[in-house]
Amino acid sequence: MTGFSLLVEVDEALEVVKSNISIAPPEVEFVTLEEAVGRVTGRDVVAPFDVPSFDRSAVDGYAVQASTTTSASSINPIELEVLGTSHAGSAPGEMIVTENGEAIELYTGSPLPRNADAVVMAEFCKRNGKNVNVTKPVAPWQNVSRKGEDFQLGEIVVPRGRQLHGWHVGALASLNLSHVPVYRKLRVAILSTGSELREYGQELRPGQVVNSTKPMLKSIIKQRSFEAVDLGTVPDDNTEIRNALTRGLASADIILTTGGSSLGEKDLVPDVINEMGKPGLLVHGVRMRPGKPTGIAVVQGKPVFVLSGYPVAALVAFEVFVEPISDLILGIKRPPRAKILGHLTRRVTTPVGVKSYVRVKVTREPNGNFKVDPLRLTGSGILSSMTKANGILIIPEGTEGFDEEEQVEVMLIDAIEASNKERGLSGNSKTR
Amino acid sequence: MTGFSLLVEVDEALEVVKSNISIAPPEVEFVTLEEAVGRVTGRDVVAPFDVPSFDRSAVDGYAVQASTTTSASSINPIELEVLGTSHAGSAPGEMIVTENGEAIELYTGSPLPRNADAVVMAEFCKRNGKNVNVTKPVAPWQNVSRKGEDFQLGEIVVPRGRQLHGWHVGALASLNLSHVPVYRKLRVAILSTGSELREYGQELRPGQVVNSTKPMLKSIIKQRSFEAVDLGTVPDDNTEIRNALTRGLASADIILTTGGSSLGEKDLVPDVINEMGKPGLLVHGVRMRPGKPTGIAVVQGKPVFVLSGYPVAALVAFEVFVEPISDLILGIKRPPRAKILGHLTRRVTTPVGVKSYVRVKVTREPNGNFKVDPLRLTGSGILSSMTKANGILIIPEGTEGFDEEEQVEVMLIDAIEASNKERGLSGNSKTR
Repeated sequence: MTGFSLLVEVDEALEVVKSNISIAPPEVEFVTLEEAVGRVTGRDVVAPFDVPSFDRSAVDGYAVQASTTTSASSINPIELEVLGTSHAGSAPGEMIVTENGEAIELYTGSPLPRNADAVVMAEFCKRNGKNVNVTKPVAPWQNVSRKGEDFQLGEIVVPRGRQLHGWHVGALASLNLSHVPVYRKLRVAILSTGSELREYGQELRPGQVVNSTKPMLKSIIKQRSFEAVDLGTVPDDNTEIRNALTRGLASADIILTTGGSSLGEKDLVPDVINEMGKPGLLVHGVRMRPGKPTGIAVVQGKPVFVLSGYPVAALVAFEVFVEPISDLILGIKRPPRAKILGHLTRRVTTPVGVKSYVRVKVTREPNGNFKVDPLRLTGSGILSSMTKANGILIIPEGTEGFDEEEQVEVMLIDAIEASNKERGLSGNSKTR
Repeated sequence: MTGFSLLVEVDEALEVVKSNISIAPPEVEFVTLEEAVGRVTGRDVVAPFDVPSFDRSAVDGYAVQASTTTSASSINPIELEVLGTSHAGSAPGEMIVTENGEAIELYTGSPLPRNADAVVMAEFCKRNGKNVNVTKPVAPWQNVSRKGEDFQLGEIVVPRGRQLHGWHVGALASLNLSHVPVYRKLRVAILSTGSELREYGQELRPGQVVNSTKPMLKSIIKQRSFEAVDLGTVPDDNTEIRNALTRGLASADIILTTGGSSLGEKDLVPDVINEMGKPGLLVHGVRMRPGKPTGIAVVQGKPVFVLSGYPVAALVAFEVFVEPISDLILGIKRPPRAKILGHLTRRVTTPVGVKSYVRVKVTREPNGNFKVDPLRLTGSGILSSMTKANGILIIPEGTEGFDEEEQVEVMLIDAIEASNKERGLSGNSKTR
């Protein structure tokens, strides 16, 4: 029962892992567009044809040859003969306008008739029986969406390593693609250790505790579009831990363990990992709070994160270590989280050389400024410190803390709640 | 073929809808914790017991009566008899320490033995056979996680109307709950109209266009944890549109139509909606760009959003109208999007009185400042303006635009990409 002998800083720990794992993204598979959001492209996706695939009108109006409108004005309109109407969905080029002065009525999206090179907007046209009076000249290609304007044949539409949003799905659909090449979902396996743990929903005997950390991590893993592999919950027993880790290494890209990471009598996980392969445990103890007992190992080129059994410590370590490493493996960058500047309601401190992740409640004051209230419950087991928080204040290693009223930057993890009065006005008080 | 006669501003349009729809959240259903992330609580969830459910040690060390350690120091340690060990998972209170000076060895998470009221950390203890020498006094309840410290019996753990994150799942698991009451997913139905449209993956005849807007909206709807109801793609035909809308009103909470919203010959949707019920079409044409032809109706108390068939216009109108209205119905607030301040690479303008949503590419310069480059392709049909963008610059109605080099605030919709050099270093160039 001794303290951690070699604590490293967060960034050092990350660097050690990065230089010891084998960074290769998973295999490429094809999924339908319906399943594509959140997945990561495994290859460059190129346009198989031009989009639009034909010149089309960007407005409702009349297709013309631009040169025939040059002298048009509201006082001296140009009169053109209307040859017919081009509907959206009709084949392009069925009708022909000529420089002798003809026009074809069309609508937004209609194919441009052959020989036409511009569209006069309806508001500058006055229909007159079989003819139309044009009151304003148009320049060549004005009000026309040109063939290939959006995507050109062969152009990279979505490069490899991009996490797909709804608009990517729209772009892929416009190319008439039904499937998209993506990396297989990263498989993240979780093993919980601890003789006192029971899965949620079971009857508890005195002294037993629900394993809240595993369902929490599984939820987060799925939300990141990864696949969660449940290696079960095993008692503090070398053989059971080794068997579960062996299964994890065979089936997953990243392995997480929870519990058994501190230095008590029963913390068997680090020793078991070290027996399983080189380099084994590279980090055991990080200068962070919560999450100090975090361990990081590499076995068979795969990262093994030895997380605290305490949910908040495990959550912070997941964000700080597991997410950057998984993003590195996939070669992606995520959009940053929202941040605000606000003033602290009280002093917060951290031990020298330790990076602290303080859960805070941010509220908007009537003058529009933000108030940052550090939550008093800050234990690594205290889930209410997360459910009551809507922000995380990071105190870097080189800082002892921040004073009351000091302005700090806070990363938002949830909405900034309105006051009760505002909530009432938003209709939230009604229910069916 | 005339212009929109009555264009309203974005905020006016929102207010009109809010005051005409019936705001009632969907029914409450129970889902397992595994399915809970992203769902919205339909009732307050209260703690059915205290968490922790017993006093437990927050550290590895020795449980004592605090009063027996008052005079302990490293020069004059207090010697206590070690009665045994309390393991995590063992029943609490099986062993008893007394004020006569006894201690019980325990580990993080172990139940506190009966009569003990504090734990001395292992680093301030020296084991000496059957005894332990304590070198530092502890205060009552020091290093103890008290019963009910995280959640107390009857306390609201997650209030109604909260969108669930991973840590909420952890909190609910710690309460040994296996199911959580959530609102049924909002059903958002989409009807596409347009004789020229084909679903993606089908063969295209000349003049035909892939319906990219519908799969894009469906992806976004699913990503918001809503349920997408596909009402199909119908030609420009009154009866088919009416039949599809009738199905939508019977099955969904919110209806979206795409296409047929401008004022051309074939734009039948607004007329059909007006025949279906009061108040019908409330907004037709909004002073925004893209998205000007957006219409909003209320039929049978349900909002019907008449969106452009053009994907970017439909996307912007979804964000600006559909999301706030759906959040209002559910009574939730979402965390804000990340924003940055950066300098424009060129002047951007907007017509007076029109709110513009300009797609921009934000890059980080070597000095850490952000450069904001408005994308030249800004047509409402131009999906590449979204796939190439990572931010949206909003130009409010009262502003004509922004000058080159002017500092502007940009809402981020994707990662700020690193330069090619950085990407290489991040390992992205490797592949299996």
